[in-house]
Amino acid sequence: MGLTGHNIAMKRDQDRKIIEPRLLKGFRDFLPSMEGERKRIICLLEKTFESFGFVPIDTPVLEYTEILLGKGSGEADKQMYRFLDKGKRDVALRFDLTVPFARFLAQHCFELPFPFKRYHIAKVWRGENSQRGRYREFTQCDFDIVGTDSPSSDFEILLVMVRSFEAMGLPSCRIHLSHRGVFNRFLSSLGVEQQGGEVLRAVDKISKVGEREVSRLLAELTNEKLGRAILDFIHPEGTYLETLKKMEDLAGGAGEDSRSLRTLWSYMEQQEIESLFVLDPSITRGLDYYTGLVFETFLTDLPGIGSVCSGGRYDNLTGLYSKKNFSGVGSSIGLDRLMAALQELEKLTPTESPSRLLILNLDSALVGYYHRLGEIFRKQGISCEVYHEERKIAQQFKYAETKGIPLGLICGKAERARGVVTLKSLDTRKSFEGLSEKEALTKVRNLL
Amino acid sequence: MGLTGHNIAMKRDQDRKIIEPRLLKGFRDFLPSMEGERKRIICLLEKTFESFGFVPIDTPVLEYTEILLGKGSGEADKQMYRFLDKGKRDVALRFDLTVPFARFLAQHCFELPFPFKRYHIAKVWRGENSQRGRYREFTQCDFDIVGTDSPSSDFEILLVMVRSFEAMGLPSCRIHLSHRGVFNRFLSSLGVEQQGGEVLRAVDKISKVGEREVSRLLAELTNEKLGRAILDFIHPEGTYLETLKKMEDLAGGAGEDSRSLRTLWSYMEQQEIESLFVLDPSITRGLDYYTGLVFETFLTDLPGIGSVCSGGRYDNLTGLYSKKNFSGVGSSIGLDRLMAALQELEKLTPTESPSRLLILNLDSALVGYYHRLGEIFRKQGISCEVYHEERKIAQQFKYAETKGIPLGLICGKAERARGVVTLKSLDTRKSFEGLSEKEALTKVRNLL
Repeated sequence: MGLTGHNIAMKRDQDRKIIEPRLLKGFRDFLPSMEGERKRIICLLEKTFESFGFVPIDTPVLEYTEILLGKGSGEADKQMYRFLDKGKRDVALRFDLTVPFARFLAQHCFELPFPFKRYHIAKVWRGENSQRGRYREFTQCDFDIVGTDSPSSDFEILLVMVRSFEAMGLPSCRIHLSHRGVFNRFLSSLGVEQQGGEVLRAVDKISKVGEREVSRLLAELTNEKLGRAILDFIHPEGTYLETLKKMEDLAGGAGEDSRSLRTLWSYMEQQEIESLFVLDPSITRGLDYYTGLVFETFLTDLPGIGSVCSGGRYDNLTGLYSKKNFSGVGSSIGLDRLMAALQELEKLTPTESPSRLLILNLDSALVGYYHRLGEIFRKQGISCEVYHEERKIAQQFKYAETKGIPLGLICGKAERARGVVTLKSLDTRKSFEGLSEKEALTKVRNLL
Repeated sequence: MGLTGHNIAMKRDQDRKIIEPRLLKGFRDFLPSMEGERKRIICLLEKTFESFGFVPIDTPVLEYTEILLGKGSGEADKQMYRFLDKGKRDVALRFDLTVPFARFLAQHCFELPFPFKRYHIAKVWRGENSQRGRYREFTQCDFDIVGTDSPSSDFEILLVMVRSFEAMGLPSCRIHLSHRGVFNRFLSSLGVEQQGGEVLRAVDKISKVGEREVSRLLAELTNEKLGRAILDFIHPEGTYLETLKKMEDLAGGAGEDSRSLRTLWSYMEQQEIESLFVLDPSITRGLDYYTGLVFETFLTDLPGIGSVCSGGRYDNLTGLYSKKNFSGVGSSIGLDRLMAALQELEKLTPTESPSRLLILNLDSALVGYYHRLGEIFRKQGISCEVYHEERKIAQQFKYAETKGIPLGLICGKAERARGVVTLKSLDTRKSFEGLSEKEALTKVRNLL
């Protein structure tokens, strides 16, 4: 049957009414099974952070662009979601949690106890220039200690990382660390402190672009000979202490910086976690604000995924917003990359439902009773749900199966009259008939 | 001492370097004690939702404006944070969690088990036209059951609300409910179904603007006589069933709509929670998409704060994005208003730190050992922290006091040599000396 002109117009009109449900590029939905796992992992991290006395904060998603840009790095501006709000304010979505934390510290320092240990798990946004597979909306888990420059606080951050990865079932992480101070002294000894920032950023690329490309970059920034010297410096030796010795030698001897690396090693040994650490002078972290310890974390079972947790020590985070200076050390876990790793390593246990029991609906006249039964189990901490419509039993069991609910409770008119219920295990297909409510509760406890 | 021209220039230069740390109007930071309580309340809600088998989802903060505007209500557009991103896409921050959920359902319906029961706790943003004291960034806690139009699912949403308020220590809530269907039949019987939407919105204002103003609005929309009739209809009678009878009478008799209100009453009675519900025909909810049950929740101890949880049944949430229709029922808790209420009712227990024990730093040579001690307690589930710097004991105790840490552990060089530690309760000022590590652990357990 052909469409008449009128019909075509009507069809167009119908089509027009439907707005295509779609997401912005680089953004995504989380369906229940994955969102449940994200929540589980976040909860593990929060528990770990809190076991060390870290406390949560939260800051707005939207801030004045002036605050977020700070000194105004061109790179951040290019990536920011920036716009004029209806009051003509120049605003932007935060692109990390560090800059808002610096602003937060400057603004609230008189209300906070120092040393201040905070964590913040929240979304951040970076727009254009996104690499393939990178998200434009992603979640960071930051934790920092501010108000002390002690090696003890450096170590605590590292220890929190170790315990976090253990808690997530990832004991095979390796934390590669170095010290900006030693590196800077080495560059000074070469007479290239002027190009220090660029050299750091060139070295920082080594895991992404390879040694040959970094070598080319370094020669360009300095000269062939100095480039080779820098490449030599960033090669780790066999052990932490051997590497430290070489770094000290090339940097003109021991200093406070290298001594703090030695102190960290002794703390690691006392905690018997030293095997998880690699002193790796090629770790520089590109960002300007790091001044001391710097580190990145790799998964030995999944090296290709890159660093899943990184950070370091900064001496003057709040300088842009306050005349007060704060020294601190902090670390950030990229939750999205971490979740990808956990999935690939089969460390996730996604579930479709928290319910352990489905109360079947055999008779809509009994729905009030079904809800009362539900409460009996919930009061004992057993998640359960009532099937809302009187449908064929097969359909209701199918629902339970799809959602991974292991037990079903059946009570029709006849059973209700006798004051009994039937329990059925969906795994074993076994039924338990003629149970009182109390017996059913005991049985459910045993079966779960 | 006067400032010379040179000095003034220098001072200006210094001042210019400091960016004033400030927030956008209507946005706020959460300091640790309040953020901790927000997390605690969210966790209670999540546990309650999950005990009924609800599962979490998440959606992006930023979506295409076309999706969020839908049919394009002028009000939503005025309030939205809307802009062109760098790819010239017309995008906006979500202003509620319902519209993104509708889009989510249309997009993922083939991957989800139905009935689908989800919760979503997240921030939303509404810009200009903010009332005094209202925030432009706020958190909603939504929970919905989609894919069934049974009274059982209506009841479950109400039951979840009751259990949520109980969990938060607010058993004195009152849920006022009504039914759009009955109201619409009543308006039809008056012959004012044309103005139905406007009448609903006028009635919806009654708790804000008072009866006299609503009476004026209604007379304007219809006429004096009809306005009086509507005012009469929305007055509750003495009991739920009396009000129901009057509603049925005025709406032209019983219908499926009023029968479902009767069914809900029987479920409430069986659950012995009927005293928490008020059948209140003045509850209409201004929003267009509600088609059945509608409700709002008030705190009897704090009526002035307004509704802290509201929602209702909708028949065609996804119609804009899909040819598939979904009937559902849902509810939304406004977390910010709820937190304000909890604070005013002194139901919050803010704490400055999760740490129960501070390990004092008497000798920086022992820091590695202090960290090892910390792990002994953490492994037993006791949050504790090491003081990072060797400082005067008084200063360290002051830190513990400020943060509300109840216990201190002291171990200097002499004690370390003897293999013992001292515990000190900051509350009672009592000390327990010469304890082995194991004894200290037992003592800490007893003291907490």
